[in-house]
Amino acid sequence: MPTRFTSAVIIIGNEILSGRTRDSNLSFLGKRLEEQGIYLCEARIIPDDEDIIIKTVNELRRRHDYIFTTGGIGPTHDDITAAAIAKAFDVALEKNPEALNCLKQYYGADNVNEARMKMANIPAGADLILNPASGAPGFRVDNVFVMAGIPSVMQLMFDGIADHLTGGPPILSKSITTDLRESQLADGLGKLQEQYEAVSIGSYPFFNEEKTGVNVIIRSTNADELAIIADGVERLIDKLGGRIIATA
Amino acid sequence: MPTRFTSAVIIIGNEILSGRTRDSNLSFLGKRLEEQGIYLCEARIIPDDEDIIIKTVNELRRRHDYIFTTGGIGPTHDDITAAAIAKAFDVALEKNPEALNCLKQYYGADNVNEARMKMANIPAGADLILNPASGAPGFRVDNVFVMAGIPSVMQLMFDGIADHLTGGPPILSKSITTDLRESQLADGLGKLQEQYEAVSIGSYPFFNEEKTGVNVIIRSTNADELAIIADGVERLIDKLGGRIIATA
Repeated sequence: MPTRFTSAVIIIGNEILSGRTRDSNLSFLGKRLEEQGIYLCEARIIPDDEDIIIKTVNELRRRHDYIFTTGGIGPTHDDITAAAIAKAFDVALEKNPEALNCLKQYYGADNVNEARMKMANIPAGADLILNPASGAPGFRVDNVFVMAGIPSVMQLMFDGIADHLTGGPPILSKSITTDLRESQLADGLGKLQEQYEAVSIGSYPFFNEEKTGVNVIIRSTNADELAIIADGVERLIDKLGGRIIATA
Repeated sequence: MPTRFTSAVIIIGNEILSGRTRDSNLSFLGKRLEEQGIYLCEARIIPDDEDIIIKTVNELRRRHDYIFTTGGIGPTHDDITAAAIAKAFDVALEKNPEALNCLKQYYGADNVNEARMKMANIPAGADLILNPASGAPGFRVDNVFVMAGIPSVMQLMFDGIADHLTGGPPILSKSITTDLRESQLADGLGKLQEQYEAVSIGSYPFFNEEKTGVNVIIRSTNADELAIIADGVERLIDKLGGRIIATA
């Protein structure tokens, strides 16, 4: 078995838990990490609470190769992620000269007020993650990558670090959508899964006023096995008298 | 201080972690729980993995008043939530007669095949959570509420249990959207937060090609304090020369 690189995502922010804001960072990171051959094993959504951030980061960073956090690195009173990460690693929170430079370049040297200066407070020894969109950088301490919560900014930050992440072979996937019910497919899918244990076969029904059906999603690092299973699923659907609505 | 009711959500499903499916259950539950006066303190997104489900449920159910899970209660091989919950509580997984009746009514008595029968396997001693949409019920064991992953089905299940949840006073919120930058508001918001510690003031910038600005979200169980802070935020925006784009 090749090395299996694993990761966890920590989404920091009361606004996600209150339901006011619907997170979109997880689905972006999930997809990109699969391309990088890094398994995303869990995600946690936690409030802007220092103790909880410290505890969560320290628990997960010892368990996975990579931890990605989003949120809480802005200039306001509720942005406490950088201070919490410093405490999690037991290092000082310092005014980072390189980060300060980023802010001066973005806002103009005379416009870096006290609130903006706060965004240059970075744990000692961290590497910056540059922010081409809005100046204030993220940072990496050891295996913990700390990024912005705003999706467009987080995505640019991730683009900047993606090449530096060591992963395994890309995790490939194929989805096959059918109008059959999940309970019709269950027996056949289970048998396919038994034959190919290294391939993950997931079955996700959809159900609304307009239509019902199932997305079958097959995931593997092995393109040949993926194709064999996909073919098996398509033949199963055909045998059961179903229709393939879409593949992707 | 009145009793503070807390909860956690556990979203079970590889499809969410792979980024293939974007979760929408969390934001629904977050909003509804606030109305019920129940604080949603954390959410975890975990794979369809028995050991992880057991460990996560057992950790969180001891820490919070209510646990809500979504996903993994269908008929296919990857639907393992019911079996895992039974193991978490160390009770048998049994064919539940009432659940079987639900399935017979929905599918017709002659159409309950083996895969469908699987959805009547419920932990011993559980109460059912009825599913008016698609037959197969969820269930409750102690303080753990196990619901479907399909949003429309989960929402109907939650509607059925909401009246039975004991919570505190509703958590009220107000959002004020301005075209100011977060770094302009930071100082004033911090001072408002210091004055009213029991009120949560969150600041959430948005940033895209079209516009930049901030949503300020104020949350409290006290309507009077909420109104005072909202007024303070609006006056702060005005003083800084900003514009209020929207309130909600």
